[in-house]
Amino acid sequence: MTISETPKLVRALQGDIFERPPVWFMRQAGRSLPEYHELRAQAPDFIAFCHNPEMAAEATLQPMRRFAFDAAIVFADILLLPRALGQEVWFETGEGPRLGALPSLEALEGEIGASTGRLSSVGETLQRVREVLEPERTLIGFAGGPWTVATYMIEGRGGERAAARTRAVEDPRMVDRLIAILVEATAHYLVMQVRTGAQVLQIFESWAENLAEDDFDRLVTQPHARLIARLRALGVDTPVIGFPRGAGALVEGYATAAGVRGVGLDVQAPAALGRRLQSHVTIQGALDPILLRAGGAALDRRIDTLIEQWSAGPYIFNLGHGVLPDTPVAHITQAVKRVTGR
Amino acid sequence: MTISETPKLVRALQGDIFERPPVWFMRQAGRSLPEYHELRAQAPDFIAFCHNPEMAAEATLQPMRRFAFDAAIVFADILLLPRALGQEVWFETGEGPRLGALPSLEALEGEIGASTGRLSSVGETLQRVREVLEPERTLIGFAGGPWTVATYMIEGRGGERAAARTRAVEDPRMVDRLIAILVEATAHYLVMQVRTGAQVLQIFESWAENLAEDDFDRLVTQPHARLIARLRALGVDTPVIGFPRGAGALVEGYATAAGVRGVGLDVQAPAALGRRLQSHVTIQGALDPILLRAGGAALDRRIDTLIEQWSAGPYIFNLGHGVLPDTPVAHITQAVKRVTGR
Repeated sequence: MTISETPKLVRALQGDIFERPPVWFMRQAGRSLPEYHELRAQAPDFIAFCHNPEMAAEATLQPMRRFAFDAAIVFADILLLPRALGQEVWFETGEGPRLGALPSLEALEGEIGASTGRLSSVGETLQRVREVLEPERTLIGFAGGPWTVATYMIEGRGGERAAARTRAVEDPRMVDRLIAILVEATAHYLVMQVRTGAQVLQIFESWAENLAEDDFDRLVTQPHARLIARLRALGVDTPVIGFPRGAGALVEGYATAAGVRGVGLDVQAPAALGRRLQSHVTIQGALDPILLRAGGAALDRRIDTLIEQWSAGPYIFNLGHGVLPDTPVAHITQAVKRVTGR
Repeated sequence: MTISETPKLVRALQGDIFERPPVWFMRQAGRSLPEYHELRAQAPDFIAFCHNPEMAAEATLQPMRRFAFDAAIVFADILLLPRALGQEVWFETGEGPRLGALPSLEALEGEIGASTGRLSSVGETLQRVREVLEPERTLIGFAGGPWTVATYMIEGRGGERAAARTRAVEDPRMVDRLIAILVEATAHYLVMQVRTGAQVLQIFESWAENLAEDDFDRLVTQPHARLIARLRALGVDTPVIGFPRGAGALVEGYATAAGVRGVGLDVQAPAALGRRLQSHVTIQGALDPILLRAGGAALDRRIDTLIEQWSAGPYIFNLGHGVLPDTPVAHITQAVKRVTGR
């Protein structure tokens, strides 16, 4: 592929600067789209849906038909991995994920080798999407950050993460070993995603908040650095976007030490901080999903501000968190038009 | 009072630097102490307890007898203010606060003048505490930050603040006016606290997280600046500590623009950020309450690290959030000893 054929989002991750940045939205596929609800009605079990390549590919592509996004992100869930490692995972409607008892670390370690094979449907989804996705649009693969996945595995559900943070302090060896298991399994899972079509990888560290500096380094930054080093050792040099949501000011140290090519910023990232990061990495974010849901002139103004404050450096336009389920489709259209100018 | 008689914590807020910083803990009074549970058993209704000067003074003083804290903070609740403005407030055991329907803004405005009188019991508590508190120990008064109180008033309870953030975006005039009401009422409430004995004031902006930079400035920083300007206009020059919990990197702009003399840092504040703030303000924080609850050698190590990283500038030792209810008293003793060296 010549440089001119390299998709815009990949070029942004190589450091290219655009007057109008490439754009995609976290959770651009899924519950905000009426056609997604029609599709899901055919496969009510969410995990079965994620593991059905035909349906997951369709869900991935639905927003690409409606909106001028520069990237598709494979439809999957960060909890497919712990399930592939042998922990029971299910979804309670309206309440989010639930996990069964945490298997022993020995048992989890014994499943690392087999886990990637159990996730092969995600690779099939990627292949299906890549076959029909326009070449100028980037296909993104992803996984949960090791700490975020560990918090789910320890707590058995979403929530305050108090139990996981307590465990990390009171039983650090156990938590460090669990994270090491997740780093290794995630590396193989992501390699598989690259082999089947992912051109960019994102690590969703959704629960990076409320950690002291030393714990953040130990539980987030260093595991990401080890994960990326493992990818490189396995022969994969695909650019990685790390998204340590809620990291606050700790994102600065993360950006230089985690080995990522891009850093996702959450809604509270200050303009000046983003500009400082742009000397090391490409930044991505950080529109408030509440503003996207609200629409109107305030949405346009905020989009203009974000582009103005960050488009002098490498920048990918995105939200600071996922699209809210009750976001009007018209507001997504409005926002993407405002970013692309088309 | 000569300089040598000025209490250590007040001196820290004047910029004095100590080898061992002054220390107090947010929620040092209350549920972690067995004697508090005995006291509360005599007055099961929490609001009635807060409004009983004898009991509230006793609760304020309980931790001062056990621990070598440099400051007492008046036992009260940030939701006494909306109650004094005419909104119903009650506490469900184990579930936290509940608030009745939000009165009209006209109704709230009409109650500003009377609200401080309805909070006179807090002044009586301060007077009782000051009578017996040793002069080298500082007495702290406090109020909730206008945005945090507004979120409770809008949502009717604690939680995700999604409704309040949505309201702030979709009906900015209403939210700005509610905040203006709270700024004015809070100013008079804090003036009363100073007149009755408070030597330092803290603004608990507990829900400063998840706001975009422009919203944070509008909803947190500027209202704090107006509140402090109002205190000065009312003749009060008492030092104010602002604690915008969850502000992340936005705390830097806050520290220079809010007009506060001290800034409380939450657990995730990086060492370097704290040092930068120390050229403008005194910093306070930021031990993880989970580590305090856990105790042990890791607690001592972290305390040493915090003192080492921040004691070259003006610094008040504290937690990054309140003491957790199930924290062993022995761990609080251990921590205070580690800080004071006594």
